Amino acid sequence: MRFELNKEFLEKLREKIAAGDTAWISEHVLELHYADIAEILDRLNNDEAKYIYFQMEEEVQADVLMELDEDIRDRFLASLSSKEIADQLENLDSDDAADILGELSEEKIQEVISQMEDDEAAEDIVDLLNYDEDTAGGLMQKEFIRAKLDWPVNRCLVELRRQAEDVEKVYTIYVVDDLNKLVGVLSLKRLLFASPKTKIVDLYQGKNIIYMKTNDSSEEVVKIMEKYDLVSIPVVDLQNKLVGRITLDDVVDIIKEEADKDFQLASGISERIESTFSVWRITRARIPWLFIAMLGGIVGAQVISTFKGGITQVPALAFFIPLITAMGGNVGVQSSAIVVQSLAKDNGLFDSILQKLLKEALVALVNGLILSAFIYGIAYYFENATLGMVVSISLFCVIIFAAIFGTMIPLVLNHYKIDPALATGPFVTTLNDIVGLFIYFTVGMLLYHI
Amino acid sequence: MRFELNKEFLEKLREKIAAGDTAWISEHVLELHYADIAEILDRLNNDEAKYIYFQMEEEVQADVLMELDEDIRDRFLASLSSKEIADQLENLDSDDAADILGELSEEKIQEVISQMEDDEAAEDIVDLLNYDEDTAGGLMQKEFIRAKLDWPVNRCLVELRRQAEDVEKVYTIYVVDDLNKLVGVLSLKRLLFASPKTKIVDLYQGKNIIYMKTNDSSEEVVKIMEKYDLVSIPVVDLQNKLVGRITLDDVVDIIKEEADKDFQLASGISERIESTFSVWRITRARIPWLFIAMLGGIVGAQVISTFKGGITQVPALAFFIPLITAMGGNVGVQSSAIVVQSLAKDNGLFDSILQKLLKEALVALVNGLILSAFIYGIAYYFENATLGMVVSISLFCVIIFAAIFGTMIPLVLNHYKIDPALATGPFVTTLNDIVGLFIYFTVGMLLYHI
Repeated sequence: MRFELNKEFLEKLREKIAAGDTAWISEHVLELHYADIAEILDRLNNDEAKYIYFQMEEEVQADVLMELDEDIRDRFLASLSSKEIADQLENLDSDDAADILGELSEEKIQEVISQMEDDEAAEDIVDLLNYDEDTAGGLMQKEFIRAKLDWPVNRCLVELRRQAEDVEKVYTIYVVDDLNKLVGVLSLKRLLFASPKTKIVDLYQGKNIIYMKTNDSSEEVVKIMEKYDLVSIPVVDLQNKLVGRITLDDVVDIIKEEADKDFQLASGISERIESTFSVWRITRARIPWLFIAMLGGIVGAQVISTFKGGITQVPALAFFIPLITAMGGNVGVQSSAIVVQSLAKDNGLFDSILQKLLKEALVALVNGLILSAFIYGIAYYFENATLGMVVSISLFCVIIFAAIFGTMIPLVLNHYKIDPALATGPFVTTLNDIVGLFIYFTVGMLLYHI
Repeated sequence: MRFELNKEFLEKLREKIAAGDTAWISEHVLELHYADIAEILDRLNNDEAKYIYFQMEEEVQADVLMELDEDIRDRFLASLSSKEIADQLENLDSDDAADILGELSEEKIQEVISQMEDDEAAEDIVDLLNYDEDTAGGLMQKEFIRAKLDWPVNRCLVELRRQAEDVEKVYTIYVVDDLNKLVGVLSLKRLLFASPKTKIVDLYQGKNIIYMKTNDSSEEVVKIMEKYDLVSIPVVDLQNKLVGRITLDDVVDIIKEEADKDFQLASGISERIESTFSVWRITRARIPWLFIAMLGGIVGAQVISTFKGGITQVPALAFFIPLITAMGGNVGVQSSAIVVQSLAKDNGLFDSILQKLLKEALVALVNGLILSAFIYGIAYYFENATLGMVVSISLFCVIIFAAIFGTMIPLVLNHYKIDPALATGPFVTTLNDIVGLFIYFTVGMLLYHI
């Protein structure tokens, strides 16, 4: 049965911790999968978490540490000594260890590393810390399995057994030449079923090897691993020497994070935040966008005040202000969302900007005609045929304009290497509001001959 | 070197196809990775694609077929005979074959299956077609490697070699008892390094086995595979018998699709569309939301017309209509985005609805105070202190209200099993517009004593 955390369990556990009932804890907590234990520790206070943590086996400790929520882990690590942290790092994969170190202060990093007993592990971690975390080098781990071209299968097995102790998950063996340059890959399955005397050179696959360079961006890594359906990918340095591998589970985390970030950007939230964060941190991530929207509203007020005479003479003009701004905003957001996604997928590779604009303009034309025809009757009912014409014509213009604008902004942002997902948020809505109001009142003044 | 598709290559390829230059094609296309070949075929017309397709080896054909864009694949399959499709299916993994069949008509499915020569493969595919595509059963493949508890390692290797022919990627061996019930897992690495006489029962891991049931939802599968960092997961039927496995690469596709869908829903697009779709299909996915926004605008017009007297007496009241609606919309979208993401992550498990609302209200209070103070001065500049008070007080109320509303709507949708991401779209904006206008004008009438 899969473990399901609930309030009753947590309460009971708290009691048992308070009572120091190690037998109960050992049976009901320590036997669980590390991901489940981490989920439990996420909900305990630091002392309770530590109490349980130090009853676990060392290997499990490392796994649990990696699964903790980042906030909880930071708090937890802060309460450990440098020596205790160093002990944890030695049981972690090098990429995870480097990630954890990266969360500490420069000074603390030095301390922890000097406390590590396994020099080789320490060296790997220090090496990984040199790479930017958004690159293949920052994502890779130093644990992978390597075979040489001229090894026979039985020698290979002996060597691999030695190497494999450090490598938790083995999917593919990387084949290198004498200079440690990557020349191919070999699946574990092929090795398993080969006869002992066969040489690696006769088994390995050297065609179309897919690999990353240490300085490739993490987006590039995601794209390549997805495109080629890979579970792990080797990483080479600038001299084509094999230096690490990236596994799909790390990439899945990036995919999720990117999706969350885009969703939040589009919703007007500037940092990655979670509902568990403090009121202050949530406010800080949200208020910049609200200021942008407010400035837009102020400029909008300025636009309308320019046309004050129109409203004095035809107060009904004010009725459709929200309709015009809402439609401009919605059309703009739709258009930019489509562009943002097509940019993310490189779908646009073969369409010129002109083609994209043309297509969006066509969609806007169809939408605009349908919606404008509909609104004519409604506005007529509110006031008269003139207002019907004003709303209908300006709505049509606003829809066309918002679509073109919504398409252009993310393309421009992308061109200047700014995340185009920014555009789908309050940015595009605010600009469309202002221009929409201007169009609406200009059409109004013209048709009412004011 | 990784292959990069560009316009020049495509043009050259088209010429070579027209000239029937099979030597060039064989050297420059057929040697590529199947994912690259699929990328090329996506850009060719159907006849060109077929010309290349039937020059590939059978195994590559199947892989390329799975990598094609769905639209392109549908078009391509439509141009093949049932016999030709049946031949392709036999080279595919059962889950992929079932997915492809699922895209055909009921009648065509019958035809294709009757044309398949491999009865066992046909049976597997028919079996998979019975499962809902959004369940673990619909995601799983029938290709996996199974070992029995009492086998020694050498017997196991012989059996596995036989089974492994059908299984492209082997990560984990599933251990079953005599009734085919799942009792544990065994990593290929452990098997590789075990001595021939050791029995599986002494090697396998039978504690904390993570598996799915055929009727678990695909969201559940994603959650579990992510939580436990799995590359593949076994699937059992209602009697706990092992019936299939799901691999992480299929799950990555779901994660991407879900993220895309949420992003589009939040941007007011109702179906998953891509920029390459036809103008009509894009319009169809967008216009429903625009109608909702328009209806909101019409109700807004109704609200304002109720307060027509106010605008006639104080035309400046109209100036801040866009500011009020924009702020209500933005705050609402922010709040609902946070709730939607916390629901997706089960973060909310331990917070009651009241706690969530309280936190959002607090954030709104802070934002509201800051922004209202700021806007007071601005509105004062436009007209007078009274307008300053009207805008400032109503903005504060609108922010608080929009935050509560934005939090509640996704929770309610979620309660009724409707995708809460719907709420972050035009839905919440539109409702907030209407209520915002009502608050604004009510405050205006009160303070101006109209």
